[in-house]
Amino acid sequence: MGLVVQKYGGSSVADAEGIKRVAKRIVETKKNGHQVVVVVSAMGDTTDELIDLAGQVSPVASGRELDMLLTAGERISMALLAMAITSLGHEAQSFTGSQAGVITDSVHGKARIIDVTPGRIRSSVDRGNIAIVAGFQGVSQSSKDITTLGRGGSDTTAVALAAALDAEVCEIYTDVDGVFTADPRVVKKARKIDWIAFEDMLELASSGSKVLLHRCVEYARRYNIPIHVRSSFSGLEGTWVSRQPQGGRAVEQAIISGVAHDTSEAKVTIVGVPDKPGEAAVIFRTVADAEINIDMVVQNVSAAATGLTDISFTLPKDEGRRAIEALEKRRGSIGFEALRYDDQIAKISLVGAGMKTNPGVTATFFEALSNAGVNIELISTSEIRISVVTREDDVQAAVRAVHSAFGLDSDTDEAVVYGGTGR
Amino acid sequence: MGLVVQKYGGSSVADAEGIKRVAKRIVETKKNGHQVVVVVSAMGDTTDELIDLAGQVSPVASGRELDMLLTAGERISMALLAMAITSLGHEAQSFTGSQAGVITDSVHGKARIIDVTPGRIRSSVDRGNIAIVAGFQGVSQSSKDITTLGRGGSDTTAVALAAALDAEVCEIYTDVDGVFTADPRVVKKARKIDWIAFEDMLELASSGSKVLLHRCVEYARRYNIPIHVRSSFSGLEGTWVSRQPQGGRAVEQAIISGVAHDTSEAKVTIVGVPDKPGEAAVIFRTVADAEINIDMVVQNVSAAATGLTDISFTLPKDEGRRAIEALEKRRGSIGFEALRYDDQIAKISLVGAGMKTNPGVTATFFEALSNAGVNIELISTSEIRISVVTREDDVQAAVRAVHSAFGLDSDTDEAVVYGGTGR
Repeated sequence: MGLVVQKYGGSSVADAEGIKRVAKRIVETKKNGHQVVVVVSAMGDTTDELIDLAGQVSPVASGRELDMLLTAGERISMALLAMAITSLGHEAQSFTGSQAGVITDSVHGKARIIDVTPGRIRSSVDRGNIAIVAGFQGVSQSSKDITTLGRGGSDTTAVALAAALDAEVCEIYTDVDGVFTADPRVVKKARKIDWIAFEDMLELASSGSKVLLHRCVEYARRYNIPIHVRSSFSGLEGTWVSRQPQGGRAVEQAIISGVAHDTSEAKVTIVGVPDKPGEAAVIFRTVADAEINIDMVVQNVSAAATGLTDISFTLPKDEGRRAIEALEKRRGSIGFEALRYDDQIAKISLVGAGMKTNPGVTATFFEALSNAGVNIELISTSEIRISVVTREDDVQAAVRAVHSAFGLDSDTDEAVVYGGTGR
Repeated sequence: MGLVVQKYGGSSVADAEGIKRVAKRIVETKKNGHQVVVVVSAMGDTTDELIDLAGQVSPVASGRELDMLLTAGERISMALLAMAITSLGHEAQSFTGSQAGVITDSVHGKARIIDVTPGRIRSSVDRGNIAIVAGFQGVSQSSKDITTLGRGGSDTTAVALAAALDAEVCEIYTDVDGVFTADPRVVKKARKIDWIAFEDMLELASSGSKVLLHRCVEYARRYNIPIHVRSSFSGLEGTWVSRQPQGGRAVEQAIISGVAHDTSEAKVTIVGVPDKPGEAAVIFRTVADAEINIDMVVQNVSAAATGLTDISFTLPKDEGRRAIEALEKRRGSIGFEALRYDDQIAKISLVGAGMKTNPGVTATFFEALSNAGVNIELISTSEIRISVVTREDDVQAAVRAVHSAFGLDSDTDEAVVYGGTGR
């Protein structure tokens, strides 16, 4: 049996009881004959409390010091977890990101992993220990300063270590049973997905599913590390995210993975843009220079009579003001008529393989929305995804209608525990 | 102007307000033209809270993991302090014990410093930064594991860094105004000592004064680093601990530094020990093998008729049970008649230079106790200290009587803030 990397989020280790429960599960895995490397997040709300403290002493904290501060959180949880395992009669050693060889660039607060040199981890597990590694943190290659990886950082740590250690699987433990065909808080009949391809998971993640973040799935796909997303509160099988399902199966027909929704975005519409080459380039360079991440982009067909067109894009709500300011500043050189900003929108996405070659999928999708009385404001598609923008008020009806229309509803409608994941 | 090392204890940085107050003081020192290196303890009760958490997950925590856990405390306080300084417009960088080059042995929980290689600290302050260093922690030379220095560890970190950086002075900030001639909670008229020699401070520290720990003073004496103990709550001059007072003065007559007391010890009396060579050696080897630190040792004159003698020693109360068990186990080979254990004792010590050559000092000491109706149970003296053991109930009367008898009472009796120091 090979090496298993397990990652436990903050909600799984929120208190002493949680830590002891997680310790038991780790020991079970070890008893089953695996080498075990565990990546752990900070306990419960520790990170938020530390950020709050930082706000109290300084309005503008330096990235280096904020990272030094926040990494204390994992230091606490990993040491406690190692103690809890030891008290179950197994040897455990905890390692900081730096000790574990997680080498990053120097961008404090959202560092990127540039190398993983897990020599100490390898020799610790080879001596029979369970290695506990602080998630979310690393050490910068140039300055040797402590860095943090930003949102989803602990998942990324786990996948990166799994890749560097050639692990059999990277298990991501969370407070839900896996990845669902829709958000179970919205769709009671949402089903747990047993297997999903990396590509589909990437689309779900960027379409609003919060169980796994895009960045960690991308890393897993690049190094072909199977991820098993499962609950730390139950013993159930969760969702496997990998290149191919165990045993393989025919994928000629469309396989709908799920319906995701996202209400964290706003829509900017630039009205009356001269329909000539280079206009869009100027607009999106302006937005990019303001370091704003845009999502969907749609350009309506130009009205021949006026020679003017409208361009719409979506972006995170909290970047809306900066985008508007940046565009207004260049209104002269771009030459548009008006800017419209709308943050009462929702994005609903259908994700699945083989969609493009199954025209019926798009039709069914739109019919479902229409029957539910939901108006479509923007449409955007990729190989394995259709996304629409609707009114925010319509999001629940829209998700339920689409979920039903594609036969995703489970037969039972038992309540499913669901919540956000940690880092 | 040279480099100053400042150390702030947990009570000085107990909350955001405390951290901001400390930051201001540090910046003032920097503005006065000094290079500044700051050693900081964990905030307020952080360490106790972490120990409590450890107790909840595991009855017996490994030293390595406990150290990993506890060092999170300084990580939090030092990062917050750096942020607070930065928000005052000065550059500050925080460093872990490991980053600061505090190299220790591998004895987790009470590691000893074996080397200090402060290259990163030096280059940080040379670039104009204020360097903030985590107290109480280091990294083991052999295993590269995180270690802690045990009680008084942060003070020791400060003095060790001051020595390695050839600092002008090591300032120990605490919640009292300095070292007093007696515990101000007991003796209202206790006076702040302006200057005290290393040797006298060592005796005070081992006699129950808690402002500075023995270990840190010993380190300062070895490397001749002047210590300035002062309050972080006032701007007052505190107590200088150094080889010689500024300006020098005659030390032919006895200079009484102060009266210390200690109620944390217990007394063990071994009754009826055969008065022959080697007996004492067997007894104290037995105690040493149980890793018990004993303090005073007194052997009564042998009663000629019986050829038996009594040996008494004092030791920390919480090691009493182990000492009794260890001695009982070897009752056969030692051959004593009985063991007596008494934890209702107090030790009162008078410390000062030139004591041995001034016989009047001892006489005055005993007369003061006698006049106060305090019975003396054990006596032990050194070059610069006389200690007696009395009933615990008598400790306050005894300390006040001795303090008065040596003219240490101040003319005023204003209340003095007093409390324990942090790590």
